[in-house]
Amino acid sequence: MQTVNETKRRGNALPEKFVFSFGGGSAEGSTNMKNILGGKGANLAEMASLGLPVPPGFTISTEICTLYYENDECLPESVKANVLSALKEVEKIMGRGFNDPGNPLLVSVRSGARASMPGMMDTILNLGLNDTTVEGLAKVSGQSRFAWDSYRRFIQMYSNVVLGMNHNVLDMTLEDLKADKGYLEDTELTEDDLRSLVASFKKQVTLETGEKFPSDPTEQLWGAISAVFKSWNTARAKTYRQIHGYPDWWGTAVNVQAMVFGNLGETSATGVAFTRDPSTGEKTFFGEYLLNAQGEDVVAGIRTPGPLTDKSAEGTEYTSLESALPLAYKDLVEIYKKLESHYRDMQDLEFTIENKRLWMLQTRNGKRSAQAAIKIAADMIEEELITEEEALLRIDPMNLDKLLHPTLDPKADFVRLAKGLPASPGAAVGEIVFTSEEAEMLKDKGKKLILVRIETSPEDINGMVASEGILTTRGGMTSHAAVVARGMGKPCVAGCADIEVNYQKGEMKIKGKTFKAGDTITIDGSSGEVIEGEVKTIPPQLGVEFKSLMQIADRHRKLGVRANADTPKDAKLAREFGAEGIGLCRTEHMFFDAERIDSVRKMILADNLHERKEALRELLPMQREDFKALFETMEGLPVTIRLLDPPLHEFLPQNDSELEALASRIKQPEDKIRTRIQSLHEFNPMLGHRGCRLAITYPEIYQTQARAIAEAAGEIVKLGKELTPEIMIPLVGTKAELERIRRFVEKEVILVQEEMGVEFHFLVGTMIELPRAAVTADEIAEVADFFSFGTNDLTQTTLGLSRDDSSKFLGPYVSSGILERDPFVSIDQKGVGALVKMGSELGRRTSPHLKLGICGEHGGDPNSIEFFHRVGLDYVSCSPYRVPIARLSAARAALLEKTKLS
Amino acid sequence: MQTVNETKRRGNALPEKFVFSFGGGSAEGSTNMKNILGGKGANLAEMASLGLPVPPGFTISTEICTLYYENDECLPESVKANVLSALKEVEKIMGRGFNDPGNPLLVSVRSGARASMPGMMDTILNLGLNDTTVEGLAKVSGQSRFAWDSYRRFIQMYSNVVLGMNHNVLDMTLEDLKADKGYLEDTELTEDDLRSLVASFKKQVTLETGEKFPSDPTEQLWGAISAVFKSWNTARAKTYRQIHGYPDWWGTAVNVQAMVFGNLGETSATGVAFTRDPSTGEKTFFGEYLLNAQGEDVVAGIRTPGPLTDKSAEGTEYTSLESALPLAYKDLVEIYKKLESHYRDMQDLEFTIENKRLWMLQTRNGKRSAQAAIKIAADMIEEELITEEEALLRIDPMNLDKLLHPTLDPKADFVRLAKGLPASPGAAVGEIVFTSEEAEMLKDKGKKLILVRIETSPEDINGMVASEGILTTRGGMTSHAAVVARGMGKPCVAGCADIEVNYQKGEMKIKGKTFKAGDTITIDGSSGEVIEGEVKTIPPQLGVEFKSLMQIADRHRKLGVRANADTPKDAKLAREFGAEGIGLCRTEHMFFDAERIDSVRKMILADNLHERKEALRELLPMQREDFKALFETMEGLPVTIRLLDPPLHEFLPQNDSELEALASRIKQPEDKIRTRIQSLHEFNPMLGHRGCRLAITYPEIYQTQARAIAEAAGEIVKLGKELTPEIMIPLVGTKAELERIRRFVEKEVILVQEEMGVEFHFLVGTMIELPRAAVTADEIAEVADFFSFGTNDLTQTTLGLSRDDSSKFLGPYVSSGILERDPFVSIDQKGVGALVKMGSELGRRTSPHLKLGICGEHGGDPNSIEFFHRVGLDYVSCSPYRVPIARLSAARAALLEKTKLS
Repeated sequence: MQTVNETKRRGNALPEKFVFSFGGGSAEGSTNMKNILGGKGANLAEMASLGLPVPPGFTISTEICTLYYENDECLPESVKANVLSALKEVEKIMGRGFNDPGNPLLVSVRSGARASMPGMMDTILNLGLNDTTVEGLAKVSGQSRFAWDSYRRFIQMYSNVVLGMNHNVLDMTLEDLKADKGYLEDTELTEDDLRSLVASFKKQVTLETGEKFPSDPTEQLWGAISAVFKSWNTARAKTYRQIHGYPDWWGTAVNVQAMVFGNLGETSATGVAFTRDPSTGEKTFFGEYLLNAQGEDVVAGIRTPGPLTDKSAEGTEYTSLESALPLAYKDLVEIYKKLESHYRDMQDLEFTIENKRLWMLQTRNGKRSAQAAIKIAADMIEEELITEEEALLRIDPMNLDKLLHPTLDPKADFVRLAKGLPASPGAAVGEIVFTSEEAEMLKDKGKKLILVRIETSPEDINGMVASEGILTTRGGMTSHAAVVARGMGKPCVAGCADIEVNYQKGEMKIKGKTFKAGDTITIDGSSGEVIEGEVKTIPPQLGVEFKSLMQIADRHRKLGVRANADTPKDAKLAREFGAEGIGLCRTEHMFFDAERIDSVRKMILADNLHERKEALRELLPMQREDFKALFETMEGLPVTIRLLDPPLHEFLPQNDSELEALASRIKQPEDKIRTRIQSLHEFNPMLGHRGCRLAITYPEIYQTQARAIAEAAGEIVKLGKELTPEIMIPLVGTKAELERIRRFVEKEVILVQEEMGVEFHFLVGTMIELPRAAVTADEIAEVADFFSFGTNDLTQTTLGLSRDDSSKFLGPYVSSGILERDPFVSIDQKGVGALVKMGSELGRRTSPHLKLGICGEHGGDPNSIEFFHRVGLDYVSCSPYRVPIARLSAARAALLEKTKLS
Repeated sequence: MQTVNETKRRGNALPEKFVFSFGGGSAEGSTNMKNILGGKGANLAEMASLGLPVPPGFTISTEICTLYYENDECLPESVKANVLSALKEVEKIMGRGFNDPGNPLLVSVRSGARASMPGMMDTILNLGLNDTTVEGLAKVSGQSRFAWDSYRRFIQMYSNVVLGMNHNVLDMTLEDLKADKGYLEDTELTEDDLRSLVASFKKQVTLETGEKFPSDPTEQLWGAISAVFKSWNTARAKTYRQIHGYPDWWGTAVNVQAMVFGNLGETSATGVAFTRDPSTGEKTFFGEYLLNAQGEDVVAGIRTPGPLTDKSAEGTEYTSLESALPLAYKDLVEIYKKLESHYRDMQDLEFTIENKRLWMLQTRNGKRSAQAAIKIAADMIEEELITEEEALLRIDPMNLDKLLHPTLDPKADFVRLAKGLPASPGAAVGEIVFTSEEAEMLKDKGKKLILVRIETSPEDINGMVASEGILTTRGGMTSHAAVVARGMGKPCVAGCADIEVNYQKGEMKIKGKTFKAGDTITIDGSSGEVIEGEVKTIPPQLGVEFKSLMQIADRHRKLGVRANADTPKDAKLAREFGAEGIGLCRTEHMFFDAERIDSVRKMILADNLHERKEALRELLPMQREDFKALFETMEGLPVTIRLLDPPLHEFLPQNDSELEALASRIKQPEDKIRTRIQSLHEFNPMLGHRGCRLAITYPEIYQTQARAIAEAAGEIVKLGKELTPEIMIPLVGTKAELERIRRFVEKEVILVQEEMGVEFHFLVGTMIELPRAAVTADEIAEVADFFSFGTNDLTQTTLGLSRDDSSKFLGPYVSSGILERDPFVSIDQKGVGALVKMGSELGRRTSPHLKLGICGEHGGDPNSIEFFHRVGLDYVSCSPYRVPIARLSAARAALLEKTKLS
């Protein structure tokens, strides 16, 4: 037998073998011959080799496609000879004859390339019918109408695909007849109608093509095979190959297979089955069938299919296949068990029973719900059908997200109003509210709310907490709304550009339709959809199999998984989801609390060091209590606290009324506040006076934060608990910055330890979130105990791309393939990733055991996690709801690496 | 003789030789013994070896300093013995005796370490005076008052430096006496006053120290030598060494040298001389002297010094030294010629004539004006005194800037109002104007103006053109105002934070003082100074030597030098300054022309492709004419044109009145324009929808620009001229962006060539101005004909630093040493530079001959240019006024590299 040929055939010599039969319990081809049999041919060969009752047929190899083109688009005689001899085999197995008027064999002719190119190439069914064989089919099936309907369909298909006629010509004839008779549906056509249609179809073919419609089945076959080869080079097929990078020289194979019929009376049937329940994953045989029907009838939904098993038919009006055709059912059960253990995965089967004889049309790995995927994987490990490794590799980590959030009821009908970015998963229903203040107020009155904003700012945190979900009209996947919502586990649709919000009027417009505050909408943060009114949602469920799989993942992964959490509530959730520490606690989120914001503002408005220290003194005890609560929750695990990062103007009032209120509360002149706001204005705040730059100007801010951390840690340690606070300095670009800040932060912590008479281990490290930090990481590592890559900001600076602005123009970038993925969702491995790699290598060159983590949004993205594993980071940190995804992704990354190495 | 000892001496054994005599036409030490003689000692030895009449003396080596500390701060007896024997030599040469009442030898005792540590260590003058030798000095000099004044000064100095007394004690005694006598100046003290002061000084020393003031000159000498050694370890000396990284073990040498006096009557004199004119560089002996005076009298300015030569005394009331003391003058002339040919540089000399005998006190390379530096270097090459290489290495490139711009008259008195950043060099005087419209109007009326803005925007271009200079209160060295002003060669002071501008009132406040529009101010863009009223300025002058030196530089440099120029006027200037092409033509500057801006706006406001193309069609002929004029000016040289770069909102009206005017001009509703402005608003425009991103969204913009370039080039080529347009795509981050844009730009140019029936070579390349582009330069090089590093934006993104905002907080960064230099002025070599290097190497890995340039502001900075030379770029491009600096810097970079390699 010819070996698999990976390279292009040259010259037009025929290969040794090029027609491969299958069926009757065996096959000449095999599953590893995809290159010459195509995907479909190889699968059919595999099923046949397993001894399954596959309708017999044969595959003409892809090499003949190349030869066909080299041979001026003619089929060589030796090919025809081989095909005819293979056809003889099929006749034998089916007990029917090609062009046999008594018991005619009909075949399908299908394309099949190495890789699936769905809908790109042509198919012909019911080939072999002519004016005499149609009568044979009518007699054998006992259904004249069916036979003539098949015949007219065949003529329509063949004249279009093989003869190149415009399909409208025959379609019009059909429609004219229906109109004459007053029919609405094709099913109303009588046998006589169909007979007359066949006659007029044939006339029209002659008129259009100048030749008679071929009545010789063999001639039909050569036409169909040629047509399939030709369809390899249609414009749409070429474009498809270009997009997917498939070379032209692959060529397509041609599969010729006997037709079987499930509609030959009450001993025939057709159906689909799953070897396990695809919704729940339960280990029960699951499926539907229809007696006396073709496959398309099951899909069409005109008749309601019945269940396969007696058990599932219990208490219903339906008869099961088990009862209706017990012998065929028994064969089916035997086969499904065989298939599952052969493919070692849940299978999705299609079958037809023709006169009590079971034929298997297709088997493939079945699609399943997220929940089912978990249960099936866990069960199959239990059954020793698959290994732990296989189980982990079979679950798409992103599917876990669906288990953790409410989802829209798939049975619900609804109309989509608009679509934004799927910024934070889960579905939520609520009344529209446009301001955070109102949200807080209405929440207290028991309302369920969706907060709708053009964009959110840190001032909206409480409004976001009070709402079921968040909808914004600007901003991308890492906009403020998106990041914070993901952290909270709240559904969020961001950057929904079709919505125009008018705060003054308290309304929004979507494509001309107006919605007022108080109107109910539903959002789906998993799909980005915005829906009018209330849609039923399904609450999340986590089963015992979920836990068990997570534990298996933990055994296989090398990467640690921490969470980004700012509050004890987030931290608790993170621990429950299996986080091994906090990788990022953003202290500024604590600053926005209503009780504190005025102290923060006093600090910012201070005219001198004395006033600033005064204001910081007010903040100190509050911060200390925050940290204490966080440390208690995370007892025994590391907690990384990032000192103040955002530019100061973010904390000041955003409009005049807020400004006036503040002025009167803190008893300072409005003008002074206004001037300060103006002086803090920046053209590019992202690249401005923020992060550690604030601490170079105002060291007392970080000093106070260091003291709050140290005092909180001291109190915890005094209670005999264990703790290692990790103090993290943001936006470091040079060693000198970190060196200077580290000095006074360390001094403050040691001072507190002396004051309190306690000792605890603590680390001072830095974010690597500027290209310069990555490029000079060897120097920075001299003064850092750890690095945490801040890939959000590193993406912004490396790509020169503002996450707040890019949603306006990034769409076309991704859709047209300039960028593979939104770089704020999945790390840009070539650019940003290269800097992460460089930073890691340079850092470890200075300190071989330097602890390396990542705390950008990419910490929860499976592709990015695989990359971080390869780079050799110690841990990823992500929002609590992403922790399970990260655990599984980390395990998969370790397994994939092992596979590649072995 | 002991060889030079580079390492630390260990143990306290005495070296073979440690006291080195000089004077009388020879020296025991030499100039290459700096390590043991210190800098001053080595220089004195060198002068003496040259046979110059240096006052004789000796140097105690630095090794004795170490020994002194090892020996419990005592001078070993053998050292004393050697010193006394060296002192005998000095007595012999001077014909005077230490402690000889008849003709006393006085000496100075000075420190002298390997490297200069100015003012850090101690000096004692007039050592050797006591109650008897003072009378001898009086007799020999014939000036009793002088002798007693020297004595009282010696006691003051010695008691403070050697005996450790607080200098206030004797200062108070002096002041008390002056008050008693009603004197204002020390010069009013009579001989009797001085005699009584000496007496009371000595009493007070005894009171304070418990011991009598030492009258034995030898005892005085041991005290002074010890004091100098001790001063090596004062706190301030240690700190100085720490800062400069000088090790403690170096130690200081001690120089003991005979005192000579220029104030012993009318045959004595003192003076300073330059071997060439330090202002003009002319080869004439130049200097000043005073008869019967000490060095300090020349500086004090009480008497006006006379000129050295007869020629310069001609027509003045002064007698020249040539006439007054012809023999000494003749000696001096001989010596200065000897010195210049020995040191091969213009010398700055100090001399004293004591009783007709010439003594040389000091010689060093003389400081000179920028103009003189050029002339001297050029003349010395001519004279074959120095090589071309030496000449080039002697000129500080930054000094050239002064030659190209008007400067403040150094003789003018003025009061500085405020200081901003020296953003664009040169001085300018004018009336304050706050808006560009007014500037244009007033300019037409013949006014000279200084445009004062909080910041400038591209809309201010015409106002900037109309003004003599620009002053802004915000923005850094690469802010819009700074970059554009440098390009125009206009003086600019930027980011002057002390100024508060109030546009409404039409006034500005500086430290409480109010200035109205119309008030005259002067700005100095070389120093950043802002001055009230008019200050006289000196126009720039470029001599023939400048040209000749530039040509020499051109012969030695490898880096090409191009200019950033947007207009034919700039281009012409650039060519005159020697630019070899245009490295950056910013097309957007053409868009702001009053005639065109409305077409540009129509394009931006267009609702659809059709309208946008319509507006672009209006712009096409104008752009074509621009390019044509530019190509004509630059005939035969390459011209790099950057396609549209800034975000579109920069072109839209910035306030309501402009908006209304525009709406009525282009007949579009105000609301529509307002909405469009709002929709174009960005949080971080630097990281927003700009550069090639515009062309991904609106390909027709670049298409039109490509057509304008091609049509202009076609017309030039038809005239038989040569031309290679280089089309440059900005802000590329991925290969896919450039690939796509290149495709349609190339297509358009080829289309135009076919239409016009011409052919010309053209290149399509890219800016490398994002870290991602540098990191993936190997990929990008696959589709680029050239790279031009845009180091302005690359600095912004690599450091995460907005050039518009950073001036507010970058100051402390530079002043406290966190950053060595403003990274927008001199490239951050470790960070941004590393990415330039990476981009170059990766680019050339793909295309070994890839043309590499740089067109950021760093292209005109000497340090940066040296870096770019080392990295191996092909050319730098800078503003026209910086072209000479770049030519010289490039030559120096090549020479420095050669030196390092050899």
